[in-house]
Amino acid sequence: MYTLHGMEGRARRGSFETVHGTVQMPAFMNVATAGAIKGGVSAQDLKELHCQVELCNTYHLHLRPGDDVVRAMGGLHKFIGWDGPILTDSGGFQVFSLAKLRKIEERGVSFQSHIDGKRIFMGPEESIRIQSNLGSTIAMAFDECIENPAEYDYTARSVDRTTRWLHRCKAELERLSALPDTLNPRQMLFGIGQGSTYEDLRIRHMQEIARLELDGYAIGGLAVGEPAEEMYRVIDAVEPHMPPDKPRYLMGVGTPVNILEAVHRGVDLFDCVMPSRNARHGTLFTWEGVRLLGNARYRTDPAPIDESCGCPVCRSYSRAYLRHLLKAKEILAYRLLVMHNLYFYNTLMERIRRELEQGTFGHFYKTMTPILDRRM
Amino acid sequence: MYTLHGMEGRARRGSFETVHGTVQMPAFMNVATAGAIKGGVSAQDLKELHCQVELCNTYHLHLRPGDDVVRAMGGLHKFIGWDGPILTDSGGFQVFSLAKLRKIEERGVSFQSHIDGKRIFMGPEESIRIQSNLGSTIAMAFDECIENPAEYDYTARSVDRTTRWLHRCKAELERLSALPDTLNPRQMLFGIGQGSTYEDLRIRHMQEIARLELDGYAIGGLAVGEPAEEMYRVIDAVEPHMPPDKPRYLMGVGTPVNILEAVHRGVDLFDCVMPSRNARHGTLFTWEGVRLLGNARYRTDPAPIDESCGCPVCRSYSRAYLRHLLKAKEILAYRLLVMHNLYFYNTLMERIRRELEQGTFGHFYKTMTPILDRRM
Repeated sequence: MYTLHGMEGRARRGSFETVHGTVQMPAFMNVATAGAIKGGVSAQDLKELHCQVELCNTYHLHLRPGDDVVRAMGGLHKFIGWDGPILTDSGGFQVFSLAKLRKIEERGVSFQSHIDGKRIFMGPEESIRIQSNLGSTIAMAFDECIENPAEYDYTARSVDRTTRWLHRCKAELERLSALPDTLNPRQMLFGIGQGSTYEDLRIRHMQEIARLELDGYAIGGLAVGEPAEEMYRVIDAVEPHMPPDKPRYLMGVGTPVNILEAVHRGVDLFDCVMPSRNARHGTLFTWEGVRLLGNARYRTDPAPIDESCGCPVCRSYSRAYLRHLLKAKEILAYRLLVMHNLYFYNTLMERIRRELEQGTFGHFYKTMTPILDRRM
Repeated sequence: MYTLHGMEGRARRGSFETVHGTVQMPAFMNVATAGAIKGGVSAQDLKELHCQVELCNTYHLHLRPGDDVVRAMGGLHKFIGWDGPILTDSGGFQVFSLAKLRKIEERGVSFQSHIDGKRIFMGPEESIRIQSNLGSTIAMAFDECIENPAEYDYTARSVDRTTRWLHRCKAELERLSALPDTLNPRQMLFGIGQGSTYEDLRIRHMQEIARLELDGYAIGGLAVGEPAEEMYRVIDAVEPHMPPDKPRYLMGVGTPVNILEAVHRGVDLFDCVMPSRNARHGTLFTWEGVRLLGNARYRTDPAPIDESCGCPVCRSYSRAYLRHLLKAKEILAYRLLVMHNLYFYNTLMERIRRELEQGTFGHFYKTMTPILDRRM
């Protein structure tokens, strides 16, 4: 259940109740694709990093260890040791980005596993069945994630199919949730609006899926290579058609500035591999901008990554030591740098919520957008 | 200062005072080659893993980040964030095992860096100067680590040179420690006895270096491929000639059973990459033997790695989850499994000390040696 506590312009301060706890929004979900954050960060560490929601991936977990294994272990929460909310991505994006020899039909998609080449079929029912086995807090609908750029006619037909798939997802989740041995009988379902960069298709699709009265709505198929301004234009177009009493999730986004821009436009929920992936390359987010730790000028720098950061890494380690670990390709570098970046993202969201509560988000947004993208 | 609290047979329960705290012995040193445990385990984590001493490597730190950097940062302790004792290996072993195009002279060894091929010279003075810059608690003498098997004549000449090098190490450390800006004016020096598998050379060398009244004595050049029985024979031969009032360190050893056998023969101090290296391949030490986590029978096993283990990993994670992380090559697998193995080694040493205090080590040794090597 989503509760809107206040707005500043279109930006929303809300909260979202789930069976695994309440999420304060706007929120950033920490991506644990195969049931673990890339970089040696555990579910226990995430608590210390102010994470509220973990995001795991249906496609990856279905392939390995298998959703049957996760179900046998009592579901994802028990398996990975996280008691807060977990959102599972439907696998749609991965089927369209990772898998090989894809064939799309009305029934679903057949493809080859990127791990062992095994032939696999996944349609709306399969995706929801896997997510039910995982027992996540929030399941995502199985959609076609269209490549960018896409033809108008193909996009229109694809969007209609994604709507039909959404009806099947909803029906399958209702069926499974009513079974006596289901892991999470109160599993939620979010629909995903597609439509590439065509505003009319985006609006039509969002209006159609809004009628299904799902638990939340996502904007999918953005941040796939188009310029940021185009993404903001699509959000501006589609946002007025998203139900105001449901959380709005912008999938796979983004930089700190992307997040500020999207919150400013009425988005509540985010996920992105950027904080963990960039950390592994020494690209660190700070309140002064982006610090490139590989830079030779940090060789004997005793300061922490960010002097105003309270994360476990900035409390203990110098830029010089972290730079050394990075250059030496020590796993400890990945762990510590990922921890810092996730803490930054999670506390950025805390700061955004506080600014919204105080009615100062507009000022914060204007002040910080030029700073957070700056490279140091 | 080494204090012998009691003996059971030849096994010794002692303690060793250093400027960075007292080490309870027998002890196992946790190997942080380049200033970090391989596997994403930080100095802070080591406290929780009951580690007493970290071992860092002179050769690696000289090459990267450079001992000038570590010195500029206030020494290894500040650099890596560890306030307990640190022993630095002299670099001798790495020069002889990792470096290329080696040339040995009386002056020292010239070789190519294994990182960038740069030509480097290291002799006794250079090794000690680097270790002084690192500011470790205990410096190791620079020695020639002879390949196994080795010719008798070559070994005899090499051992004599290592003795001459030891005199130079001692003189250089005394000179550096007297300088006003030295990082650790009370840095200790351990000598290393060599002599391959020739008992007469081993004894002669140990007798010679014992006369120098160093802070401790190591047995080097073992566990380099010879059968375990041969190693035990050499320890049996050389141990009576090691000063009883100084710690005895068996370098690079070994399995839990190797350690039990060596403690039984009067050794106090150990180091080995085995717990961390084996962990990264899913080979886990437990009180019931060696568990191979990759085994399919752990696929849905909800038990911890070792049901009698109190480590942070066994308190929280199932074999099934850890096996999944290992198969998925998640960095988190390496971190958690390394943590378990280091905790096992460190608490094995605690157990050995307790058994010695109670006069029950002999029974423990006999009971555990057949168990700890067993593969599961």
